[in-house]
This record gives sequence, C-alpha cells and structure tokens, in this order.
Amino acid sequence: MKKFINYVDDAVVESLSGLASAHEALLAVEFDPTFVCRRTPKKDAVAVVSGGGSGHEPLHTGYVGRGMLDAACPGQVFTSPTPDQWMAAAHRVNAGRGVLFIVKNYAGDRLNFQMASDMLVDLDHLMVVVDDDVAIDHSTHASGRRGVAGTLIVEKMVGAAAEAGADLFECKALGDRVNSCTASMGVAFNSCIVPASGVATFEIGEHEMEMGVGIHGEPGRQRLPFAPAVEIVDLLLDPILKDLSLARGREVLLHVNGLGGTPLMELYLLQHHARRRLAAEGLAVARTLVGNHTTSLEMAGASLTVTALDEEAKRLWDAPVHTPALRW
Amino acid sequence: MKKFINYVDDAVVESLSGLASAHEALLAVEFDPTFVCRRTPKKDAVAVVSGGGSGHEPLHTGYVGRGMLDAACPGQVFTSPTPDQWMAAAHRVNAGRGVLFIVKNYAGDRLNFQMASDMLVDLDHLMVVVDDDVAIDHSTHASGRRGVAGTLIVEKMVGAAAEAGADLFECKALGDRVNSCTASMGVAFNSCIVPASGVATFEIGEHEMEMGVGIHGEPGRQRLPFAPAVEIVDLLLDPILKDLSLARGREVLLHVNGLGGTPLMELYLLQHHARRRLAAEGLAVARTLVGNHTTSLEMAGASLTVTALDEEAKRLWDAPVHTPALRW
Repeated sequence: MKKFINYVDDAVVESLSGLASAHEALLAVEFDPTFVCRRTPKKDAVAVVSGGGSGHEPLHTGYVGRGMLDAACPGQVFTSPTPDQWMAAAHRVNAGRGVLFIVKNYAGDRLNFQMASDMLVDLDHLMVVVDDDVAIDHSTHASGRRGVAGTLIVEKMVGAAAEAGADLFECKALGDRVNSCTASMGVAFNSCIVPASGVATFEIGEHEMEMGVGIHGEPGRQRLPFAPAVEIVDLLLDPILKDLSLARGREVLLHVNGLGGTPLMELYLLQHHARRRLAAEGLAVARTLVGNHTTSLEMAGASLTVTALDEEAKRLWDAPVHTPALRW
Repeated sequence: MKKFINYVDDAVVESLSGLASAHEALLAVEFDPTFVCRRTPKKDAVAVVSGGGSGHEPLHTGYVGRGMLDAACPGQVFTSPTPDQWMAAAHRVNAGRGVLFIVKNYAGDRLNFQMASDMLVDLDHLMVVVDDDVAIDHSTHASGRRGVAGTLIVEKMVGAAAEAGADLFECKALGDRVNSCTASMGVAFNSCIVPASGVATFEIGEHEMEMGVGIHGEPGRQRLPFAPAVEIVDLLLDPILKDLSLARGREVLLHVNGLGGTPLMELYLLQHHARRRLAAEGLAVARTLVGNHTTSLEMAGASLTVTALDEEAKRLWDAPVHTPALRW
C-alpha cells in the first residue's frame, strides 16, 4: 500500500488540517469531536449539516461554505461519524432557525445519527436521507438504496434554499423532493485500498468491471466483461431512466462523477456519450457537472447521476456557491 | 487496460466534445485542426494561447476562459500539438494586439511550435517557455528542465495581465518572470497506461517510488524506497527551495498537485506538511492551490510547486477567473 500518509490513525486529522489551512478564509476545523464549519456563520437561517465516512473527498468537507453546507462531520475512512460529532457541529452552526441534517442511507450513518438526534432534544432539527443509488435495493453497508453521488446535488439545492431564507420544513421537503427525482449508478474497474486494512477491498480481473458498485467498494449489481464506454453508458443509464421514468421533453441535470482514479479526459468522454443517450430519450441536459466529487479513495471508475429539473431546481442549482470544491 | 474509451483514436475527440458540451456557455471546440477557445472572444487585448499533449487534464483545455487562456491546443495523448493547431488557434483568437504562446519545455512541443511560429509571419507573437521542474536538467522528453505543474501558475498570472490590458511585451516579460520564480518536483507511486500503447510506461515495485518523475512517466531523479508523507515532502521541497533560494520572510504560493490517481484526502495531508516545512524555512504560504490540475492520466503521485510572490503576483493570482477547472 503506497499512500501519502504517516500513520494510518493520523491520516484524517492531518488531511483535515491541510484542508483548513488551504481554505483558512472559508473554513475552520475542530477536533474532539471533529467537524468542519464555515469560518463566518450564517445568521437567522436554517443550518445545513452533512457528514459521513472520510475517503469520499471532496464530499462532504469540500462542500462547506456559502450557499451549501454550514458544517460537515467526517468519520474515519469509510466509517460513520459518531453521535458527538453530529451534536457538536449542530450546536456550533445552529442560528436559531433549526438544523437540517443530510445523511446518506447507510446503516451505520443512520444509527449514529439517530443516537445524536435522540440527544438533541433542545434543538429543532430534521433529517433528509439520501438514497439515490439505483443499483441494488440492499447491500452489505446499507438498509435499502445507498446514498452516493446524488448527495451533493441535494446538498447544493438545500443549501441554496437555506441561504435564501427557507424554513426548516421547507428545507426538509425540498431535500426529500430532490432526492426522489435523483438517480445514480456507478461502475468500478478496480478496488480501492482502505488505509487501515492495507489490502484491496475486492478482487477484480483484468477484463472485468463491477457494475453498480457502491462508493465503499461494496458489491454491485453484476460482474460483467469489460466493454466500450458507449456500452457502459447504456448499462448505467438504463436503470437510472427506468427509476426516474421521465416524460420526453423534461430538463435534467447530468452529473458525471469520477470515483477517484479515473482521468478527467475519460469523464468528459462519458459526458459526451451520456448526453447523447439522454437526448435520444428526449431529455434535455440543461445543467452539467463533471469531475471527481464523490470518490472512493483511488478507485478507478465513475458514476452517472441524473436529476429531473424544474424552474425552482435550476434556480437553486445556479445560485452562488463558494466552497473548496464547488464555486460559482 | 480498462479505460472509458471506445476506440483509442477517437478518445481525444470524444473527450473534447464532452468538455465543450459540458461548458457550452464558456467554450467552443474546433476540429481539424483541433483547438478549444472561449465562446466569447476578448477584445482589444493580447490573446494567450497554450497547448500540449492530452492526458494532463484539466491542463490546458480546462483553463480556457475569462482571466486565463484564450485558446488551448490539445495534441493526442502525451503527443505535441501540430503546427497547424497552433496557427489556427492563434488566428482565431488574435484581437489585434498580438498572441502570447505558453509552451512547456519539451523537445516535441518546442519543435512543433517553432514551425508554427515560422509560418506566423503576419501575426505579432511571442513565446514563454515554462521549465519549472527542478528534478533533472535533461530527460528523454525534454531539452533542459521540463515544464510541469507550474505551467498553470504562469497561465493564470499572464492571463490576468492580458485581461487587464497588458501589451505583448509586458505579458512575455511577466511570463518569464513567473516561470523563473516557480519550481516544482513530483513523485510517482505507479505508472500510467497510455491508451495507444496499452501497457504501463514504466515498472515500479510495491515498495518503491519514482522521485522527480515527469508528467509523462519519464524517469526521475532516483528510485527510492517508499517513505512516510512527511519525508516525501522534504524530498520534494529540498530541491525546490535550493533552486529558488528565497530569503526568509518571503511570501509564496504553494500548489499541491495530484498526478491523477491520488485521493484528495492525501493531497490535503501533503499540503499540511508542506506548509509546515515552508514555515520552518521562514516562508509564509500566502496562497494555496490543492487538487488534480496537471495530471498524468491515472498515475498515482503528486507534485509540489512553489512560486515566490510579490504584490503584483498576488494581485494577478487573485484576479477573477472563470474556466472549467479554475474559477473565482
């Protein structure tokens, strides 16, 4: 295992220290319990807090900032944040109008968050559970569909609404609505290596791909022979389109996400073919995001995410955002 | 070789098509000869044009836009653009005040550019050669020091100056000055696979690292046993600091660049330690950039770049930029 680390146990702390010093005007990091929050807190608005295991960067810590998250709680690599992290972050960023938590649908994340929620009796809060992965209904890590690359789309739109003054119930309803019209599916060409284990999470042959892989290397829908990009695009979009069942003429957001080890050149190539396929289905790609946003350490692979858009969703997506990893 | 491509020969064209459609408000792409240019041309200003082999994305095509490049000429993967690409791009973006070309110091790039330059007799132009790599003086690809991750810093600062109305000679002098106070060095943990060859560019052991590697997988300064991150930071910064020989108290820009296959989590960890080492040398990191900017396909590894700053350089770095890969 060759990684830029010193001691495995220090990697997350040292990385977060580097994130904070690289963006010191924007972010602050706290340890014990660990969370990242905006340097300048929002006033008189709903606070939006997300979190999850580390190793998916820039998700979630890279999305803390104006127009998106108020705080993010990073766990150890691929490990849920603890209840005290959620509680400390919530108390720090609460600005009197309540806290909306955005949680990916994994058993550990939900359990730890529920414990925090039970103890946050003095703080108005609601939760949005993201479960955009259409690959499988149940996996080793999740109860029901998993939360994957669509999470940042929920975070972006809810963050914009909160910034504009939406109340806690409006933010919760919006998050649920965005999640329900967002669908993702991924494919992996190789496995990542979790630092604490030092070995590949799964074995895969030189001519195979794991279709429907999760962002922790969980098994996918099926192991298939390797195929040209245009065929992979169809294999990813077929279940997405079936899940969303959008009317022709509908505008969509297309997010091509790299899992960490795939060159940007290939992600743009995927975008080209995914857009063509969506056009052939009568869908207009009105917004596009291409890049390594929800990663799985150094895994080679990618995911496609489609979100159905309406005028409100476009306005929320286009609203200004200033975070380390998303800015416009 | 598992990559998101259809046919090797089509990969660059399909990827550029995807880049253009993902950023259609910002960019246009032309083929035969191939270049990427701004959708809305600059007026009455020096045009800034760069280029080089594909496979380093987002360099250079991802830096076309307001405040940075007017056009970029992508060659095939790790292959120099041809003279007709440089010429077509220059004629397209010339706004009557001349064209500044930014060329990385590789034998092929310089030769092909020189042929274009010889034919551009009707167009005022000058060239800045970037050679920021302090690893070695000569390599298999280059004559003299190689141009690597410092290139985007030259492009950013020269682009800002051109946008603000600097003339051709001022842009050329600025580019040379930024290049001369910029130094980089990289390390690789594994090789990338060039699509046209289908095999790893070099072999490297499970416990080795290639110190001073080039962005095409060229051999580096030495093959060393794998080491903790803090030691790697010293191995990268020692020759950079020796080359720049900066006085204590000097402000610098620190750029931690991923070569493509290294997680962002590790790049931020490197930033943490590089900043500490620079502070110990009495240098103040006044600006920071962390991410996969000058890549070598899916190579695992990273480079550190240090640029000495003065008030003008900070102002040019901070000037607004709106490109696919750099925006503020």
